[in-house]
Amino acid sequence: MRESEIRVTFQPSGKTVHVLKGTSLAEAAGGAGIALEMPCGGQGICGKCRVIVRQGEVAEGPEQAELLTAEELAAGYRLACRAVVEGPLVVEVPAGSVADSAPKILARLEGTQQQAADPPVRKQFVRLPQPSRRDDRPDWDRIRQAAGPVEVDLELLAQLPGRLREQRFAGTLVVAEGRLIDFEPGNTESACYAAAFDLGTTTLVGILLDLCRGRELAGVSRINPQVRFGDDVLSRIQHVWDSDEGLKDLQRAVGEAVDEMIGQLAEQAGVDRRSIYEVTFSGNTTMQQILCGLDPRWLGRVPFVPATSEPIVAKAAELGLGVHPRALAYVMPVIGGFVGGDTVSGLLATGLADRDGPALLVDIGTNGEIVLGLRGRLLAASTAAGPAFEGARILHGMRGTAGAIEKVVVDGVLRINVIGDVPPTGLCGSALIDLGAELLRHGVITPQGRICLPDRLPAETPADLRRRIVTHDGQIAFLLAEAPETSTGSPIVVTQQDIRQLQLATGAIRAGANILMARLGVSPQQLETVFVAGGFGNFIRRKNAQRIGLLPTEVPRRLIRYQGNTSLAGARLVALSARARQLARSLAERAEHVDLSADAQFHQAFAEAMVFPADLG
Amino acid sequence: MRESEIRVTFQPSGKTVHVLKGTSLAEAAGGAGIALEMPCGGQGICGKCRVIVRQGEVAEGPEQAELLTAEELAAGYRLACRAVVEGPLVVEVPAGSVADSAPKILARLEGTQQQAADPPVRKQFVRLPQPSRRDDRPDWDRIRQAAGPVEVDLELLAQLPGRLREQRFAGTLVVAEGRLIDFEPGNTESACYAAAFDLGTTTLVGILLDLCRGRELAGVSRINPQVRFGDDVLSRIQHVWDSDEGLKDLQRAVGEAVDEMIGQLAEQAGVDRRSIYEVTFSGNTTMQQILCGLDPRWLGRVPFVPATSEPIVAKAAELGLGVHPRALAYVMPVIGGFVGGDTVSGLLATGLADRDGPALLVDIGTNGEIVLGLRGRLLAASTAAGPAFEGARILHGMRGTAGAIEKVVVDGVLRINVIGDVPPTGLCGSALIDLGAELLRHGVITPQGRICLPDRLPAETPADLRRRIVTHDGQIAFLLAEAPETSTGSPIVVTQQDIRQLQLATGAIRAGANILMARLGVSPQQLETVFVAGGFGNFIRRKNAQRIGLLPTEVPRRLIRYQGNTSLAGARLVALSARARQLARSLAERAEHVDLSADAQFHQAFAEAMVFPADLG
Repeated sequence: MRESEIRVTFQPSGKTVHVLKGTSLAEAAGGAGIALEMPCGGQGICGKCRVIVRQGEVAEGPEQAELLTAEELAAGYRLACRAVVEGPLVVEVPAGSVADSAPKILARLEGTQQQAADPPVRKQFVRLPQPSRRDDRPDWDRIRQAAGPVEVDLELLAQLPGRLREQRFAGTLVVAEGRLIDFEPGNTESACYAAAFDLGTTTLVGILLDLCRGRELAGVSRINPQVRFGDDVLSRIQHVWDSDEGLKDLQRAVGEAVDEMIGQLAEQAGVDRRSIYEVTFSGNTTMQQILCGLDPRWLGRVPFVPATSEPIVAKAAELGLGVHPRALAYVMPVIGGFVGGDTVSGLLATGLADRDGPALLVDIGTNGEIVLGLRGRLLAASTAAGPAFEGARILHGMRGTAGAIEKVVVDGVLRINVIGDVPPTGLCGSALIDLGAELLRHGVITPQGRICLPDRLPAETPADLRRRIVTHDGQIAFLLAEAPETSTGSPIVVTQQDIRQLQLATGAIRAGANILMARLGVSPQQLETVFVAGGFGNFIRRKNAQRIGLLPTEVPRRLIRYQGNTSLAGARLVALSARARQLARSLAERAEHVDLSADAQFHQAFAEAMVFPADLG
Repeated sequence: MRESEIRVTFQPSGKTVHVLKGTSLAEAAGGAGIALEMPCGGQGICGKCRVIVRQGEVAEGPEQAELLTAEELAAGYRLACRAVVEGPLVVEVPAGSVADSAPKILARLEGTQQQAADPPVRKQFVRLPQPSRRDDRPDWDRIRQAAGPVEVDLELLAQLPGRLREQRFAGTLVVAEGRLIDFEPGNTESACYAAAFDLGTTTLVGILLDLCRGRELAGVSRINPQVRFGDDVLSRIQHVWDSDEGLKDLQRAVGEAVDEMIGQLAEQAGVDRRSIYEVTFSGNTTMQQILCGLDPRWLGRVPFVPATSEPIVAKAAELGLGVHPRALAYVMPVIGGFVGGDTVSGLLATGLADRDGPALLVDIGTNGEIVLGLRGRLLAASTAAGPAFEGARILHGMRGTAGAIEKVVVDGVLRINVIGDVPPTGLCGSALIDLGAELLRHGVITPQGRICLPDRLPAETPADLRRRIVTHDGQIAFLLAEAPETSTGSPIVVTQQDIRQLQLATGAIRAGANILMARLGVSPQQLETVFVAGGFGNFIRRKNAQRIGLLPTEVPRRLIRYQGNTSLAGARLVALSARARQLARSLAERAEHVDLSADAQFHQAFAEAMVFPADLG
């Protein structure tokens, strides 16, 4: 049975999600990509996740009355973790309630509350001394006296004598990465923008930043057009091996998409593209190398060697981006061939490296990247989780787009939620996790991952689940949606083979985390925080992720913190802060890359992690 | 009467000149562009200018017997300053006798005898560790470990993963200016070349250097094709004011010429153009700015402000030069708008700044640049000597090419020497100086520069000079060659107006030197050395230059030292030595630019210097 969804809109971003009745506002916010501040893990204890209900009704609970004043409650304040969606809502999220806001991270980085205190691009309106017989210094000396020690390209230097005099020696110096990139007529100090991109294997996300005010002005996302050359990183690399034009194909695809997205961002914000002076990028090593045209072929062969681990600073024009003609592109440093700029971003955005106690970062995507931090040491590993969480290699799997079953709940009967107001076409990763957890709870699958025949089921297994155990193409399977309900007219099932894929994906990540913990002598019980990153991570139900063993079962749920798209958060940070760049570089250097496939313990750990945890009771 | 010339060839360069009988070998060498070591000023005292006569006869003089052994004399050794050309000769010049050889200057710069100890381009054959499971460092780390702290452009970095593996991680690193510019297959360490250019307003001179051995392999020169846009710097700047395409016209003209010259140099030396990794340039500020496309318009307007005084490092490809695709171009730092890289080169090549006692550098060209050094202080000035010394604005003036009368001697009768074995077409600057001096000596012109009518001449004035005082187009003039002798069929004369031009050119340089000396409280008698630079400077007879007051009359002749083309010598030094680049930069920064036209004393000094010195007796 498919339930109707309820619309929830968050202000000031205007982001809207459709959720099942009974969903918490915190989870709804996560679905909208807004990670709320929840140090208590959503237990209604800390009172940090307060939001204001502007339209619609949300009941007051006992915890809310404890943590909010009567005036606040009357004004619509609620704790998002406790507030439950019962009908359509418009909810305002105060800046102080957002967990991953760049200004806050910057403040943490810099120990102050300044916003974008040290943007790598700076503008300065100057009136330079005009030449006279008593002052015949070169033009460039005049600029250097005002701008400090900067370099300049020949192309701009060539124009300066004419420009200085046309502008009567007054104008706005634009300096990026220690280079003068323009001397604009008039005072343009307030028009200073950068774009920041998360280069996902599957999805590209970009935002436009106002560097003066440290504010996000616009955001866009789209499918990475490289998917037509293959779903995962390895198949894209194979395309480069197979075709002389392979690298160019891939580079052009992503470059053109990013360029178009920049156009959309500029239009949304009403900003001239030529006032964008820098574009920052964070992605896995292969995505970053392809963007820059760096031959990625050896990222697909043992021992998976990247071209460079250093940040790349190039001209944006070299990457085909239509922004300021001398704008720069900054590409995140990487840790290794399979632990890329996105993981460095994750470290940057979560502050994991600053923590003393053991903390784990799990970035769940086509590849699962895992970092374990302990007293300044950082171990980083990558596991080929495979694309199961992205819906690939699952019989009726699909990405989390319209028509995807994204959530599965069993309360006597099985309920599903579908993205968009349409009949279901398939299921996405979060629903697969939900289903795995529910079927384990109700004994429909064994810890070894076998789907039980109806006659082997425990007596208490609900009848609705029992009847859904079917045979599909000669294979035992679980029926999620019947033919008349679906968009395709065929039933949507999860097969024994699909459950095996879930085990593989989950086991790889869990085994990786276990190996890293073993290396530093940390037990799961000792973990003080588990950061869950990745656009997908936001949509996972913690309880279910723990039930199937994707996240350590031994960790209290309140210590599991969703961080949202930390790759984008990292790209934003390095666009806003030169200090963040230094930190990114040192994090990439400090992190020790652990090659799991070369670890003698890995195969044993993987085999063990493939077994779902026993019932937690 | 025109005398037949005698052919003298110098080895190992093979350079050949034709000189008048009686010319010293030192002067003949100067004519061939070879400046010999002559600390004594050519007085036959120091014995440094020894050469070996390989073909032909040269008489032994008394000084030679004192300074050379009988065996040496028998083997053909002679002192070039004392040896007199009587018939055709082939003469070998040992490296130790050459004054301005780059290895010697480098040795002075570095206090050692090394040759090209620190070329800015270096090659290094390496075998890098190959990646393995135990060594999955990025490709770039492997290169950095071998090459040290270098940078790399994205374009080359993009190729490295493929190249490293094609070459099995072995090859030759090429590093220029702290950037990796190639990783060549095999060991190419011994093929490492640079080209160095003197960008004269009138003449371009280029040489090809072997950076491994610090040796010059080839040389070429040609007229600067920009002359079609005007003879002097100011008329070229005017072309930029007058035409939208003016700067491009000029830049293209010089760029194409230099590119062709590089082709000639490579062909002469049998070297692949792509093994030329750097091209260095030295010229006046305007020539340098035009080469780089830096708008030169304000070099033609008070206060003559250059775009920059710093050395410019650009890609050679940006300047249109066909050398290694990532080769660099290095352009000398300048002191001011009219004291350019050529003067910095002069300081570099002469070592003037290292001297404690007062020393003067005079670079005679279309502009006369003058530097006075005293105990670490350096005052630099430029005077608009005008193009008289280059033959322009002189009725029958011409450059020092075939057909130019280049020398005038009066010994009872007037004798001339013509360049090339052809009838004369006109006269060049050195002959004008000779003539001025001879006419002063014989009372034909007064110190005020007036040509005397025959009836006003002293009784002792030779009859041959008397008869040459003629009227030309209603103006009093001196007849140098009669119509039947000349290539044009018309007589060659020097007019009263021409003598006036000589006074202006001479007076400007002399006044400039006097102003600088006054500023530092130095009298001409105190000067310890006068360095004479400029391709033209080599051809001036010191005695005659002093007689007309172009060089200070008070300075003993042995202290006047010809340095040849110091602009080229400077370009060569910065191609061979990174230390020389540092020194060039610090010399350009240290030198104080004196704007003569703003000096209250200049007009008085100029008026005084216009008067030729009284007879020295």
